[in-house]
Amino acid sequence: MRIESPRYTERFGSVRINDVQEVLELDSGRARELPLHENIAVLKFEEDVIKEYEGKMAIVIPTKDEKLKLFEGVVSGVPHECLIIVVSNSQRKRVDRFRMEQDALRQFCHFTRRRALIIHQKDPVLAQALAEAGYDDLLGEDGFVRDGKAEGMVAAMLVAMIIKKDFVGFIDADNYFPGAVWEYARCYAAGFSMARSPYAMIRILWRYKPKVSAGMFFKKWGRVSEITNRCMNSLISSKTGFETGIIKTGNAGEHAMSLRLAEILPYASGYAVEPQELVSIFEGFGGVLPMAQPTAARHGVEIFQIETRNPHLHEEKGGEHLEEMLLPGLGAIYHSPLCEEETRQMIREELLQRHVIKAGEEPLPPHISEPPKKIDIQKFAKVMKEHLPLYSALEDKL
Amino acid sequence: MRIESPRYTERFGSVRINDVQEVLELDSGRARELPLHENIAVLKFEEDVIKEYEGKMAIVIPTKDEKLKLFEGVVSGVPHECLIIVVSNSQRKRVDRFRMEQDALRQFCHFTRRRALIIHQKDPVLAQALAEAGYDDLLGEDGFVRDGKAEGMVAAMLVAMIIKKDFVGFIDADNYFPGAVWEYARCYAAGFSMARSPYAMIRILWRYKPKVSAGMFFKKWGRVSEITNRCMNSLISSKTGFETGIIKTGNAGEHAMSLRLAEILPYASGYAVEPQELVSIFEGFGGVLPMAQPTAARHGVEIFQIETRNPHLHEEKGGEHLEEMLLPGLGAIYHSPLCEEETRQMIREELLQRHVIKAGEEPLPPHISEPPKKIDIQKFAKVMKEHLPLYSALEDKL
Repeated sequence: MRIESPRYTERFGSVRINDVQEVLELDSGRARELPLHENIAVLKFEEDVIKEYEGKMAIVIPTKDEKLKLFEGVVSGVPHECLIIVVSNSQRKRVDRFRMEQDALRQFCHFTRRRALIIHQKDPVLAQALAEAGYDDLLGEDGFVRDGKAEGMVAAMLVAMIIKKDFVGFIDADNYFPGAVWEYARCYAAGFSMARSPYAMIRILWRYKPKVSAGMFFKKWGRVSEITNRCMNSLISSKTGFETGIIKTGNAGEHAMSLRLAEILPYASGYAVEPQELVSIFEGFGGVLPMAQPTAARHGVEIFQIETRNPHLHEEKGGEHLEEMLLPGLGAIYHSPLCEEETRQMIREELLQRHVIKAGEEPLPPHISEPPKKIDIQKFAKVMKEHLPLYSALEDKL
Repeated sequence: MRIESPRYTERFGSVRINDVQEVLELDSGRARELPLHENIAVLKFEEDVIKEYEGKMAIVIPTKDEKLKLFEGVVSGVPHECLIIVVSNSQRKRVDRFRMEQDALRQFCHFTRRRALIIHQKDPVLAQALAEAGYDDLLGEDGFVRDGKAEGMVAAMLVAMIIKKDFVGFIDADNYFPGAVWEYARCYAAGFSMARSPYAMIRILWRYKPKVSAGMFFKKWGRVSEITNRCMNSLISSKTGFETGIIKTGNAGEHAMSLRLAEILPYASGYAVEPQELVSIFEGFGGVLPMAQPTAARHGVEIFQIETRNPHLHEEKGGEHLEEMLLPGLGAIYHSPLCEEETRQMIREELLQRHVIKAGEEPLPPHISEPPKKIDIQKFAKVMKEHLPLYSALEDKL
């Protein structure tokens, strides 16, 4: 695989934000004994290195009542070395869709000899393990994990931790192209191999996101992303004193973290989760507020933004209105202690102009769960580890 | 990579036609020192094996005034080990689109350190080399290579021969997904590694071919493919006496051949080229007519049909009418000396019903070029080899 070298890096306290790096070549062949003269603008990632990082990575696929054909396709695209963790909030009554997902994953793992875990978000053991560990933030009033992709993501992250993975990457289950899924995982692996800090995050930028309505139009920027990025860049600019457009992946659903970074970040609910990760990093390590964690502050937190070769073509659900997508992310920025009046005003104007809020209103603050590090992970592990075989999709031992 | 084992093989004289094999996993990770217990229904192809075959393969990309963004994407998906041969019939007057393709390919090769060739179909040296070698079938009245994708494909095949590649695979330049292109090349490599005969052909079946019109609909079978396959299966059935549906890739544009097979086949023009390849194999090695070539007859000719994981999403040009696509392929079947009256009647009825021909009419026979083996390849090589550096996209030496 070949990816552009990071050509520009913005610093914000201990945070290093790398500008977008494009994927140039999906598969760069065999390692050469005598490396050829490489261009200084390009990094080559050998297969061995990519597979080594993939072996340390869990790929989390959050899903909810997704078409089974899409789910199967996504799973088939994840590189073999990665451990797949499916966290599903699909319906179990009437039609047991979770059971169908389990069956599909088991069949896939049976034929491809690979390990994967599948857990329902409302699993009672999971809820018990979280309760015993003291992670009440994730639990609803009924004692089960709350609804929402973000809660599923955090639960899956904890599972990746007790299985001793080093990295966790997220890939949505509604992707039409297994080949794009495969590329995401490789971008994550390549990103982590580039990082000099153990506290690293990789965020994916899609080359194009085709709109399927009366033909094909290859949009590069979604409206929601555009606005979120603009407001987040305003937040950074106001603190550094230099105007910037460095953040281009504020809403990136496809992203990955080293677990050392993942365990020290708080998480927002719903669509705020991905923007909040960046906001939390800026708050914790931007140098404006007290450093959140001394070791991470010393190493620095590194953010890579990688632009894929494949376009992103996913299931259009409809019913996803602009305000549902836009409001939570802007709320996360708005309510950050870093956010000064200028950015707040920008956010209010954006929302007002799109009739998402009324004059005099402001976005709600996101619901925030405390960092996984704050809970007693040993207690979580103790309850979960006994039950891990039940979550395994591969019945026979490898 | 994991692909289903061939579960069923139909024999027609010395031809072995394998039933469709599905790709199960795009990337099956590292080779294990101690191989795990594999399922007998699944074949695992190690990266080393795939890359070894890719290294012996030329990927031919025929193009004509294709959008540059699509062309660039396709090129970026071809695995590094493969030699890319672009054969372009794009316009050179007014806007020199060929020059734009050259520039894009040169830039790509510069940054990814890879070799590629790009030749214009109307290149005077190419025409001269073909004329000296006695391959007049490919030349028009003006002395240049005739228009048409088929002619470009054959010319590129000859170039692959003089560069001493063992395999040639074709991939259209209008594919939206680099990840799908990558999968095609891997399917070719995996197919050749399965073959027990040096005379082998791999044909790609798309899992789905999305139709982009008022939302997405994932069609599995195009109408043209369905009819062509039915008629070709009828031709086989009438000779073997057993009804069959074995051929599912009669029109496969994405296909590959060992050059030992490629050099002994005649080629049809236009849309007839892909169906004619199968018809020629049945004529030459089906055992009904005299064997076309004794060595190939002894080894047998093997046909693999591989179903990809990625859907096929390509540029819809419009203006490609059913009859333009359907008629040439059916003409190739109709005019085969193997084709008896029953299949001929079926073809006439299909065409009549769709208003492609009128009552009493029959499809025209395809224009056929003789097998490359019949020409003097040494003379072709002598003229071309001197000029190869001019076709190379990588300026500096590797």
